[in-house]
Amino acid sequence: MPGHAQTCTYSPTDVGRALANLRAAAPLVQCLTNAVATGFTANVLLAVGASPAMVDVPGEAAEFTKTASAVLINVGTPQADQRRAMLQAARAAHRNGTVWVLDPVAVGATDLRTRLAESLLAEQPTVIRGNASEILALAGTKAGGRGTDATDDVEATLTPSSHLAAATPSIVAVSGGVDLVTDSERSIRIHGGDRLLTRITGGGCALGALVAAAVAANPEDPLLGTVCAHALFSVAAQRAAVQAAGPGSFAVGFLDALSSVGPQELSASAVIA
Amino acid sequence: MPGHAQTCTYSPTDVGRALANLRAAAPLVQCLTNAVATGFTANVLLAVGASPAMVDVPGEAAEFTKTASAVLINVGTPQADQRRAMLQAARAAHRNGTVWVLDPVAVGATDLRTRLAESLLAEQPTVIRGNASEILALAGTKAGGRGTDATDDVEATLTPSSHLAAATPSIVAVSGGVDLVTDSERSIRIHGGDRLLTRITGGGCALGALVAAAVAANPEDPLLGTVCAHALFSVAAQRAAVQAAGPGSFAVGFLDALSSVGPQELSASAVIA
Amino acid sequence: MPGHAQTCTYSPTDVGRALANLRAAAPLVQCLTNAVATGFTANVLLAVGASPAMVDVPGEAAEFTKTASAVLINVGTPQADQRRAMLQAARAAHRNGTVWVLDPVAVGATDLRTRLAESLLAEQPTVIRGNASEILALAGTKAGGRGTDATDDVEATLTPSSHLAAATPSIVAVSGGVDLVTDSERSIRIHGGDRLLTRITGGGCALGALVAAAVAANPEDPLLGTVCAHALFSVAAQRAAVQAAGPGSFAVGFLDALSSVGPQELSASAVIA
Repeated sequence: MPGHAQTCTYSPTDVGRALANLRAAAPLVQCLTNAVATGFTANVLLAVGASPAMVDVPGEAAEFTKTASAVLINVGTPQADQRRAMLQAARAAHRNGTVWVLDPVAVGATDLRTRLAESLLAEQPTVIRGNASEILALAGTKAGGRGTDATDDVEATLTPSSHLAAATPSIVAVSGGVDLVTDSERSIRIHGGDRLLTRITGGGCALGALVAAAVAANPEDPLLGTVCAHALFSVAAQRAAVQAAGPGSFAVGFLDALSSVGPQELSASAVIA
Repeated sequence: MPGHAQTCTYSPTDVGRALANLRAAAPLVQCLTNAVATGFTANVLLAVGASPAMVDVPGEAAEFTKTASAVLINVGTPQADQRRAMLQAARAAHRNGTVWVLDPVAVGATDLRTRLAESLLAEQPTVIRGNASEILALAGTKAGGRGTDATDDVEATLTPSSHLAAATPSIVAVSGGVDLVTDSERSIRIHGGDRLLTRITGGGCALGALVAAAVAANPEDPLLGTVCAHALFSVAAQRAAVQAAGPGSFAVGFLDALSSVGPQELSASAVIA
Repeated sequence: MPGHAQTCTYSPTDVGRALANLRAAAPLVQCLTNAVATGFTANVLLAVGASPAMVDVPGEAAEFTKTASAVLINVGTPQADQRRAMLQAARAAHRNGTVWVLDPVAVGATDLRTRLAESLLAEQPTVIRGNASEILALAGTKAGGRGTDATDDVEATLTPSSHLAAATPSIVAVSGGVDLVTDSERSIRIHGGDRLLTRITGGGCALGALVAAAVAANPEDPLLGTVCAHALFSVAAQRAAVQAAGPGSFAVGFLDALSSVGPQELSASAVIA
């Protein structure tokens, strides 16, 4: 029944299994990311058992993609040298078939980063991950943007996200109150999370790195890897929020939870639809 | 009685009201800041309900000042590309009348950053924020400096700070055991804080960003906005110090306190004179 | 009995005394380090009572070495501007006799950083600090490397480390399950630590900065300063691990412990052989 393909989703057990694969694979994630989130991103990768390598220098970024299990390119603070390294790394990852994730931070907010994101898009990222504003800007349906804040509703991105996923082609992941992941044929919503995630810096950026790790560890099903990363983020955030007295203690508890939530707990707690 | 202008200060209630304005406005603060403090600075802004945007790339920094509520320029690690972006952003902010704050980190310690700070000063920052060494160096009364450590007494900066404030013109804020804020006609001292603030990195840098946010949210009275930012920092530090076992837990509790201290608590606890 | 020189080690009391010297000296450590670890490194230095100054811009990096008590050069994210500053600072430190520490992050993983590390080595670092992979790559006995993860056994580095120490000449420090410090004539092993140190970013990088501080504070015996830094790291990690619920709370407790472990506790807890 091909007409029912759109209703196909994963079970919580599938997501738990994908997390088990992530823990077992301990993928090495090369990150070309922004100056603000780099430390937190590395700590998130280490917390889940992956290895970060922040290799973003022209002249070695492309070479290192051969060593890396996956590559994250986040355009949050794209100085000229890093932009060159990003284009080199994206091209190398595309050519080699290495998993790579594009996080188009604040695309639409300035001409420079809109052009940069478009150049990177040509190298067909495995996954594009952003907030609703960014995905809408990238999909060409909306200009503008306000830094890293999401100003648009996730649900409103469903059609543009599907078109972007089909046109690139790529998996598209939109984070917000409810997260949305689509490969244009299937769309999965991940519920949960906590508003405190929006009160610490680098949450979305680190999620991009976690997507890269989880997709690398689940090569037979990159859509499932993407969903797993979002589900783990949501469950860990909920667990951390219970004990947090504010954004400082939330960030600490979130790293602890990313480390300790196992496949069984994820299967039991993830809410996907 | 114009002769009494110098004795005019704010009441704790004024400071509480300014914080209420800050929470309501949720200003977007563009930060061109150093590599060490960037993550903590973004977390401080998020904790108080503001939005950080670390846009410091030549070719987009000036453009983005039109979107930002305020701009912070901190010269702590001024690589060449960032220096160009700083000059472009300062010029744009000055021209557009956007609030902007200069943090002249370690000015006086090297020729390069002394010249950079002087170039930025020509764009008339709304507020200049530093420690006593830096403000003295900038006021031209003293050379030298030892990185980011304050080696001079805050009270000794009163006259040079007033002259600097009048000459720029600008509000000048000096942080130390007691903080001093002056617009050359009025001088306000903010008591409190805790020595643990000097044992975590980026404290002063993040205060500069908070000043930018608070001034943007109180456009009718930038001096009050500056005082409010310092008072909130002091009260949050005191609250965090009570429960801290050292600098690690202090930083966590400080972010929690910045998020939870409200206008009423600030009015009740702020000590300004 | 010169034949017994290799068996000469320090007593725990020596290590405690070296820590007392560190606390009393409050050395100023200039760091040219990677973008990921810069904030954590500064916080580690502040926690132990030292002062960080992240001065890594060409045109001021060499000038600032005259002010600094010690210099750390960590090649983790070596953009072109920073590489130029590193070479300038290393040359100035060597010429002036200023203590300087080389952390050859991921040397061997790409040609660019292998060449950079070799150029820096010519300026005779006081201490070379890395994991086993990095020290082996630098000693020329092994190519390759997997980012910052240690893939080789510390004990297997004993002979290459001694040769590297003699040839440079330099003290060589290798961190792992057991740490190894050698000046080619004497080799000391530091036990303890905790695996959680490998689950937070910048641990090794911050240790390099702490070595720089401890050696600057113990000018009569740089080998002892190096051992003291490693012993303090190990004891603080063990103390933090007891109360940690994961890597997030471990990092917080680790900074608290670095601040509160005193000479007496270090003497009582350090295990060196």
